[in-house]
Amino acid sequence: MTRPPVSQISRLAHRAAGTAAANRMVPEETPVAFSFAGTTHAVMMASPADFEDFALGFSLTEGIIADPKEIEAIEVEDLGAGIDIQIRLKDKANTRFQARRRRLAGPVGCGLCGIESIEEAMRSVDAVGASRVTLQSEDIASAARLLSKQQPLHTETGAVHAAGFYVPGKGIVMAREDVGRHNALDKLAGALARAGIDGASGAVVVTSRVSVEMVQKTAAIGASIIMAVSAPTALAIRTADAAGMTLVALVRGDEFDIFTHPERVTSGVAKHVA
Amino acid sequence: MTRPPVSQISRLAHRAAGTAAANRMVPEETPVAFSFAGTTHAVMMASPADFEDFALGFSLTEGIIADPKEIEAIEVEDLGAGIDIQIRLKDKANTRFQARRRRLAGPVGCGLCGIESIEEAMRSVDAVGASRVTLQSEDIASAARLLSKQQPLHTETGAVHAAGFYVPGKGIVMAREDVGRHNALDKLAGALARAGIDGASGAVVVTSRVSVEMVQKTAAIGASIIMAVSAPTALAIRTADAAGMTLVALVRGDEFDIFTHPERVTSGVAKHVA
Repeated sequence: MTRPPVSQISRLAHRAAGTAAANRMVPEETPVAFSFAGTTHAVMMASPADFEDFALGFSLTEGIIADPKEIEAIEVEDLGAGIDIQIRLKDKANTRFQARRRRLAGPVGCGLCGIESIEEAMRSVDAVGASRVTLQSEDIASAARLLSKQQPLHTETGAVHAAGFYVPGKGIVMAREDVGRHNALDKLAGALARAGIDGASGAVVVTSRVSVEMVQKTAAIGASIIMAVSAPTALAIRTADAAGMTLVALVRGDEFDIFTHPERVTSGVAKHVA
Repeated sequence: MTRPPVSQISRLAHRAAGTAAANRMVPEETPVAFSFAGTTHAVMMASPADFEDFALGFSLTEGIIADPKEIEAIEVEDLGAGIDIQIRLKDKANTRFQARRRRLAGPVGCGLCGIESIEEAMRSVDAVGASRVTLQSEDIASAARLLSKQQPLHTETGAVHAAGFYVPGKGIVMAREDVGRHNALDKLAGALARAGIDGASGAVVVTSRVSVEMVQKTAAIGASIIMAVSAPTALAIRTADAAGMTLVALVRGDEFDIFTHPERVTSGVAKHVA
């Protein structure tokens, strides 16, 4: 059931010196269907790797379960055209999920479902008070630099996102890659939970932009800091601010921007603040 | 009902010279719910702009309609937390959509829905035979360069994708931007349809990576060429190849890679091929 996450293809490389056929590594991508209680909940295009991490992480960050113990079993089946993941929930979580599904499905043609779907997308993010992690400015540059050394798929293809978990003094203790940035973060969430690593013990670092969903998922992990190589959206900033989360983005070498809650970045920054 | 697609925020910029508060423009992002026949079909996080283009383009590229005439009305309502778009389909399209919905919804707990959802995600792409457009290597560099001049949101924020429609000899005749690359392409599809521009008359050019969904949407537009600034996935390459679509990617200045069907790139390339 193992699939390669990258493939070698041949393409015509048009360069100043001329055009020639040459090989290149490109990332694979496959539909992954998540079914809970026997019914498909979502289909994602994802890198074919780390399916158990993905299933557990998605269940956690989408609020379908509150604890890994609520999952009875995860069954992964390769159907050729894609990956079918059946997730069986334990009694209480199953009841809660079925109730949520009935509420969201609503009567066909009710005309109100747009409102409920929007509310679901904009679900409030719990305040991230539990974490006592703080960073020095050097940690931020280190986190991005160390993550780049744990991106084998990206090194091969130049086209894959990564999400890592940085603990001051320890570096990147976990990292996952995926063609989709949300998937990479979900896989990280699952990998942390399976390894028993408390999300409040470190900070999330991602290679991508920060949309509101990345903030929601970081909060679900329990981390109070997200660092990103690219830029955030305005909604991500407002959501992180309201949740008490520190959002650092545009990390380029030793330079970066702090968009919310700079109080967790302790030294080498605060003393310069205008 | 007009929302600004970008907002100015203040953040701490940590630079070699020191740290100071400074303003920056960031893209807005809002949930957009599409309802057909009164029931929500999908919710996307998108830039709050070009909603009618988005609704029409999404309906076309997702195969919900085959022709813009199948839409009775598009109603856009700003609910504050997001945008609710109600799309009313005409009789035949409405009947077809309801049948598709019933087929996909399936009986709860059937356990087979993962398979159907995967088949839906991997839906076959019709061969793109109708277009007679060919490009010279200079067109490819021009398309990317000209698109970059029609990206006002990206110029302000550095964090927004764009999709453009390039016609040899005319340049970029239409362009749309969005925080999501799929949304940008859907908005382009809708804008082309509303302007009565035949998708077979030109080529699609995007600033992003090329996933299989970008190939599916380009085929639905009727274009036989997609050019991209970033890299494609292996599945996108296989899908474009099978559909007879020319996929050019990694367009950087005058250099680019041709991944499928190089026969549409006529001069300045073929004569050098090894």
